Amino acid sequence: MSDNLEVVDITKLNALAAGTNKRTPRVVAAGLGGKLMGTKGLVNVTAEQIADDSVKAMDTKNAKSMTLAEKDELDKQKYLKIQHISEKPWTLSNWYQHINWLNMILVVVIPVYGFVSAIRYPPLWKTTLLGLVLYVFSGISITAGYHRLYAHKSYDAALPVRLFFALFGAGAVEGSIKWWGHSHRVHHRYTDTPRDPYDARQGFWYSHMGWMLSIPNPKNRARADISDLTSDWVVNFQHRHYLTLMVFMALVLPTLIAGLGWGDYWGGFIYGGILKTFVIQQATFCVNSLAHWIGIQPFDDRRTPRDHAVTAFVTFGEGYHNFHHEFPSDYRNALKWYQYDPTKITIWFLSKIGLAWNLKTFSQNAIEQGLIQQEQKKLDLMKAKLNWGSQVSELPVWDREEFNTRAKKEGLLIIAGIIHNVSKFIKEHPGGQALVRASIGKDATKAFNGAVYAHSNAAHNLLSSMRVAVLQDGDVRSNTFDLQQEYLDKKIE
Amino acid sequence: MSDNLEVVDITKLNALAAGTNKRTPRVVAAGLGGKLMGTKGLVNVTAEQIADDSVKAMDTKNAKSMTLAEKDELDKQKYLKIQHISEKPWTLSNWYQHINWLNMILVVVIPVYGFVSAIRYPPLWKTTLLGLVLYVFSGISITAGYHRLYAHKSYDAALPVRLFFALFGAGAVEGSIKWWGHSHRVHHRYTDTPRDPYDARQGFWYSHMGWMLSIPNPKNRARADISDLTSDWVVNFQHRHYLTLMVFMALVLPTLIAGLGWGDYWGGFIYGGILKTFVIQQATFCVNSLAHWIGIQPFDDRRTPRDHAVTAFVTFGEGYHNFHHEFPSDYRNALKWYQYDPTKITIWFLSKIGLAWNLKTFSQNAIEQGLIQQEQKKLDLMKAKLNWGSQVSELPVWDREEFNTRAKKEGLLIIAGIIHNVSKFIKEHPGGQALVRASIGKDATKAFNGAVYAHSNAAHNLLSSMRVAVLQDGDVRSNTFDLQQEYLDKKIE
Ligand code: HEM
Ligand code: HEM
Ligand SMILES: [Fe+2]
Ligand SMILES: [Fe+2]
Ligand SMILES: [Fe+2]
Ligand SMILES: [Fe+2]
Repeated sequence: MSDNLEVVDITKLNALAAGTNKRTPRVVAAGLGGKLMGTKGLVNVTAEQIADDSVKAMDTKNAKSMTLAEKDELDKQKYLKIQHISEKPWTLSNWYQHINWLNMILVVVIPVYGFVSAIRYPPLWKTTLLGLVLYVFSGISITAGYHRLYAHKSYDAALPVRLFFALFGAGAVEGSIKWWGHSHRVHHRYTDTPRDPYDARQGFWYSHMGWMLSIPNPKNRARADISDLTSDWVVNFQHRHYLTLMVFMALVLPTLIAGLGWGDYWGGFIYGGILKTFVIQQATFCVNSLAHWIGIQPFDDRRTPRDHAVTAFVTFGEGYHNFHHEFPSDYRNALKWYQYDPTKITIWFLSKIGLAWNLKTFSQNAIEQGLIQQEQKKLDLMKAKLNWGSQVSELPVWDREEFNTRAKKEGLLIIAGIIHNVSKFIKEHPGGQALVRASIGKDATKAFNGAVYAHSNAAHNLLSSMRVAVLQDGDVRSNTFDLQQEYLDKKIE
Repeated sequence: MSDNLEVVDITKLNALAAGTNKRTPRVVAAGLGGKLMGTKGLVNVTAEQIADDSVKAMDTKNAKSMTLAEKDELDKQKYLKIQHISEKPWTLSNWYQHINWLNMILVVVIPVYGFVSAIRYPPLWKTTLLGLVLYVFSGISITAGYHRLYAHKSYDAALPVRLFFALFGAGAVEGSIKWWGHSHRVHHRYTDTPRDPYDARQGFWYSHMGWMLSIPNPKNRARADISDLTSDWVVNFQHRHYLTLMVFMALVLPTLIAGLGWGDYWGGFIYGGILKTFVIQQATFCVNSLAHWIGIQPFDDRRTPRDHAVTAFVTFGEGYHNFHHEFPSDYRNALKWYQYDPTKITIWFLSKIGLAWNLKTFSQNAIEQGLIQQEQKKLDLMKAKLNWGSQVSELPVWDREEFNTRAKKEGLLIIAGIIHNVSKFIKEHPGGQALVRASIGKDATKAFNGAVYAHSNAAHNLLSSMRVAVLQDGDVRSNTFDLQQEYLDKKIE
């Protein structure tokens, strides 16, 4: 298969897919901002170091400094010798080391504080409305922005739209576009493997929040190319100033609006800030848990993603997740008019007013192919559970002599060159006993196939369950239903 | 195919199926009783004559008097020369000859009279209840008795049950068991042909009532064996005294009960008699019209019978008619617990108290085979509408030389020995442009099938739509999805 045919270099292509060959420097935030929501793993190296490494990545042997790939490899080697915390059992003395405390504070401690405060401070309706509006803005920024625009490039958007997504997306407190997009691409590429950050096979709880609340095993670290993201200054800007933007958009802005607007600083902070953020976070987490857990699998049942209206409802339409994993760069998640996908509507609307373009869709042909193949698979499984009668090739061959000797005694008749034992069926025959009795010991091919009665599909199935032998030199036809059709169409006499 | 192999005699078997060979005399009612609801066609000859004929039927040439088959033949010959009324157009001067006036009176005139009387005579609730009870008794007698017991022999029943069915069935004013069972068997054997008495292809109205209100064409007369019916004295008794029984059960009995019971003779006559009968008649007619008109076809779509909950509801459960035509001797019409089939429940209940036995069912295997084959048929139709890419055998064969020359320019790459044009797809690739670009001009089989990314079913479908040629001496695999599975299962390296 070689000669003058070049085969792709798998290692190089994998480096390409992981983005470890890029000249474009990886822009990373340092300090606490860089550690938010798991960014730590991605930014353990300095920006200069990554930029330097990436250039050398295609030719690793000569590199002065390490490439990302080499660094990952080194990490793996290191933890071959010593145990990483994630590989140790949880004990009374080490449990706190297992936990990602930063995330614990952001997605558990602060929300709990918010709920407790809310009990003693009922909401004003104006503040509730503010919370709702911000919920929609930040939620849509995650689904239409972080997810479909950035992680999947399913369309292009104008600067104001990208800025809106970057700002209100930061307000959802789910990490920067850069970090989020990276993890999400890794999730798509390694779905249901140890490298999948939200590996749904580890249970509902793990894929919902467990993965971010615990320290992951560096052995499973995977990378994906995000050079297209880092070439957008909006992404880089948001990543660099993530901490500031997050605190401002999530908490300060609602506090100020409610406070300066109608004097409800505290309500704005709790309802427009903490609780709104909590709801968006939980909704997004549902895409990793619920969407891999409940619902149907119209396109692929080898992996966990599923379609469910409930998931769609809580996630602005991200609930048709079986479709989405199959056609990730389609700007739609739901295809049917009655399925809930407001994110799709938003993108479509943006395109109508000129703020979005290049909306990507997969061909209807490809989509229907998938549906049909999956149906076929289900059907084949059901078929395999039923008894379809003996294959003609498995049957013994009898000569006429043998048939004639045994026919009357055993209750045999011939249809389409095949000998059938009808003794048990005579009494069951819906067309009466007499006709079957009169056919015993004879060839009833024509009678059965229309000359007396053109039998139903069901009758042909029953017939094949009665096969006992094949007639020597007979005109054997294993599909008697097709044979009957030929008689009826007068293709044969 | 002959030699010492006997082939059934189609003519003899057809005589058998039509019952024209029977020694058992056909018992017929004479006069008006014999003409009710279409019996005329069946009893045009005297009882003695038929009995005599039937004996000779297997050997028609020597018959002194005519067999039924010969009589039918003679009728046909006669109307080859002169036109039968059914073949003439309806005109102002002959329209009354087209109409079966007896049936017109029984199913139209009397009910109209009942409705008009009802306007001026509102019902008492006791009388309404009586009407309802008689409606259920007579309705069930038609479905569980006339239809499933007698026409289809789907179970055996004790004498009291048979008497109940014969009496209350007569009260439905739909003809005798004998006539009804005969027409019904003809309907099953000749469904959707000119010989089908209720031929649904002639429209809803014709199959509902038109067929019985007009004079049928004797050319289309068909017969079915009912010797099993005439061997039950209950059937013969009912047929012989049909007129008396019908009038008594349909009209006299309710009039007497309501009159002697609570002094409401007139109400008993109208509501318990005329209107109750009207409702049962219409319900039964729906099995011939509605059940061949609305609903789904899970078992067979070549013919008109259909399954619909509404039909089931108005017909005591006879609405799963697609199933019924496929499995006519099954005592059930509906299989699922949530489907409405009180007739099935009644039969099952009778069997539990020892009044019914030998309940026939088709094997679950045969039923599921039918469902699956029908699904397969639908799927094949959908498949045929889609583009599945070029067949490998239709593609031109290129040598490596040719591939290498054209690859870069045209954007070609090789997967599984097949050359694909990916130029238009590069920008659409959900995994990014770089990977596809880097694979152009090369063999990307392994990369595509898991070494870089194990592609979805959808990706494999898209791939086959990009086929342009086959590589000379290449390891051609047309099903790349299976190939990928082999790589993933490590069956190949
Ligand atoms: C031994 C294999 C046979 C099987 C499994 C079989 C099966 C059936 C089944 C399931 C039906 C119900 C209606 C339908 O499915 O279309 C039926 C009806 C019928 N069969 Fe057969 N049959 C067999 C042999 C025969 C033969 C040899 C004859 C004639 C020579 C015959 C004549 C009829 C007739 C006339 C009906 C119509 C009954 C009606 O719908 O009223 N069958 N048969
Ligand atoms: C030219 C034929 C190709 C087609 C039709 C194709 C199609 C697709 C499709 C439909 C996806 C979406 C996810 C999925 O379906 O599994 C995808 C993703 C991907 N493809 Fe391809 N691809 C092609 C070639 C390649 C090649 C040659 C490579 C690598 C050398 C590659 C690498 C990837 C990767 C890494 C992803 C993962 C993207 C993600 O889920 O984030 N593809 N491809
Ligand atoms: Fe997912
Ligand atoms: Fe996604
Ligand atoms: Fe029917
Ligand atoms: Fe029937």
